[in-house]
Amino acid sequence: MRVLFAGKEFRRLWDILAPAFHEYETDVAADDELPGKIRDAEVLIVRPMPVDDALLATAGKLRMIQQWGTGAEGMDLDACARRGIYACNVPSRGTGNAESVAEMAIMHMLLLGRRYSRSQEKLNEGKIFTPPGTALWKKKACVIGLGGLGHSIVERLVCLGMNVVGANRTQKEEFWDWGLTEVYPLCDLEKAVAGCRFVILALPLNRETENIIGEPFFRSMERDAFFINVARGGVVVREAFERALENGWIAGAGLDVFWKEPPDAADPLLHHPNVTVTPHVGGVTDASLTGVLNFILQNIARLGRGEKPLSCLNERQLDR
Amino acid sequence: MRVLFAGKEFRRLWDILAPAFHEYETDVAADDELPGKIRDAEVLIVRPMPVDDALLATAGKLRMIQQWGTGAEGMDLDACARRGIYACNVPSRGTGNAESVAEMAIMHMLLLGRRYSRSQEKLNEGKIFTPPGTALWKKKACVIGLGGLGHSIVERLVCLGMNVVGANRTQKEEFWDWGLTEVYPLCDLEKAVAGCRFVILALPLNRETENIIGEPFFRSMERDAFFINVARGGVVVREAFERALENGWIAGAGLDVFWKEPPDAADPLLHHPNVTVTPHVGGVTDASLTGVLNFILQNIARLGRGEKPLSCLNERQLDR
Repeated sequence: MRVLFAGKEFRRLWDILAPAFHEYETDVAADDELPGKIRDAEVLIVRPMPVDDALLATAGKLRMIQQWGTGAEGMDLDACARRGIYACNVPSRGTGNAESVAEMAIMHMLLLGRRYSRSQEKLNEGKIFTPPGTALWKKKACVIGLGGLGHSIVERLVCLGMNVVGANRTQKEEFWDWGLTEVYPLCDLEKAVAGCRFVILALPLNRETENIIGEPFFRSMERDAFFINVARGGVVVREAFERALENGWIAGAGLDVFWKEPPDAADPLLHHPNVTVTPHVGGVTDASLTGVLNFILQNIARLGRGEKPLSCLNERQLDR
Repeated sequence: MRVLFAGKEFRRLWDILAPAFHEYETDVAADDELPGKIRDAEVLIVRPMPVDDALLATAGKLRMIQQWGTGAEGMDLDACARRGIYACNVPSRGTGNAESVAEMAIMHMLLLGRRYSRSQEKLNEGKIFTPPGTALWKKKACVIGLGGLGHSIVERLVCLGMNVVGANRTQKEEFWDWGLTEVYPLCDLEKAVAGCRFVILALPLNRETENIIGEPFFRSMERDAFFINVARGGVVVREAFERALENGWIAGAGLDVFWKEPPDAADPLLHHPNVTVTPHVGGVTDASLTGVLNFILQNIARLGRGEKPLSCLNERQLDR
């Protein structure tokens, strides 16, 4: 089987990838090499990037496109299906991605609740600062978006003894097994965040969710509440977020994602006293690297055995 | 009922204490006022301090000494019993204390695993630093000390998907209900920490535990492991800990407690690149303030109704 990695970023991982894929013929294609190299590839492994019909037209032997991770927004699923190509991603939960990002959400909650930045600032000034903190235990939290990531956050916050409510586009029976006390539709976010000291955003970015978090949302949050974004910057209206901080509509925020990435290190939001920042590394862990790699290896092995690959995003279209 | 608070620190909490204790006659005694004011007190509420027979000799009406918190090392339990005085503390678990300290342990684990300090340093230099982090999920952790605090840490780490082993002086059946995979006696700490990426110290400080964590312990830890102390500085030999950092026997440490408290802000350990620091604020949260207060109010109410108070430390001696 010939496996092509699209994007020179994969070269940085080559020490790990080469031994893991030793059974296959592998190659890496930088963007300009892709149209040439894709001709012989049977499996294409991609980072977030556009995969359209024009590219597929040159890929006569391709049987599967495998996203390296969850976000497969760039793939034209119908075009893949028309050519009989499986389009797969890696599920976030169980592969270390959702679990790692959920841990990052908790880190931001703790940093904000314990006023860690201020305490470090004081330490660097030579002062011992011991502010009373806000415990997570018994507080109310709202998790917005109940997919794989939201699920991983909810189960952790419930275990930490929090009262957790959720918000999601669709309502599913299984939500009640997670320990959520209430579940709201996305049109009721203002109600969902009432009484919550922590609000965690875990929505995917798409046409429905873009800019869904605006001024009315922040105005309806409690003034002593913290807003955590481990999803995507584009779900939030930046100007509304800035106004919320300026006007004290919220107590602070923890951001793992930004409107432009990587963020500009001089961006004042990255140095705001009530904002904690990590530069989109929620999912960048040893666990998710191993988890994604193993999932992909198993998926290629399935294909090799003539089985359907897992986490296939265009199964419906292929069945037609 | 006349309730006396021993220590002027309680004056700082008076806005909260006065309304909470409005049913009782209350007073605060600074150290030098205590021998005089204790004569009329029926309940004495104390911070960590010596309570010996000489003090009790002047306390003719005293029925209960109630520790504000868990650590009642200063109380002479026998002396209290001989005079028919209940000596009580506040249990750590269920009152927000153990829960808050457990959250602090997790914060240190996350900060270390994600290299947060380095990432903040880089940010202040105007650089975006995105190191691959160490997830907690599926890693092995060892919790040393399985009392109320240890229990609260174990249940949280199990929920985070960690493989958790414990170490404790005595072995109890209930440990197996907590989700621990192995439990070691304290004489086998070197075995307990084998293969662990995180080691969390949750032992009380007493004659048996003082300096129990020394050079052989740190040498037996994994070189990529983090050591978290949310217990007491005195359980650890400082020189051995410093050598462990210097020689790379451990990858780093998170300290909420110190050998001298408050720590000296100029102490180089507080500014070590591989050490995260919080100045003994693990239990200083809104949750534990409320929890301790409510427990004490209920205990005084029990006494008033002629019932035995809860969390009585000298019950055995009183029964003789």
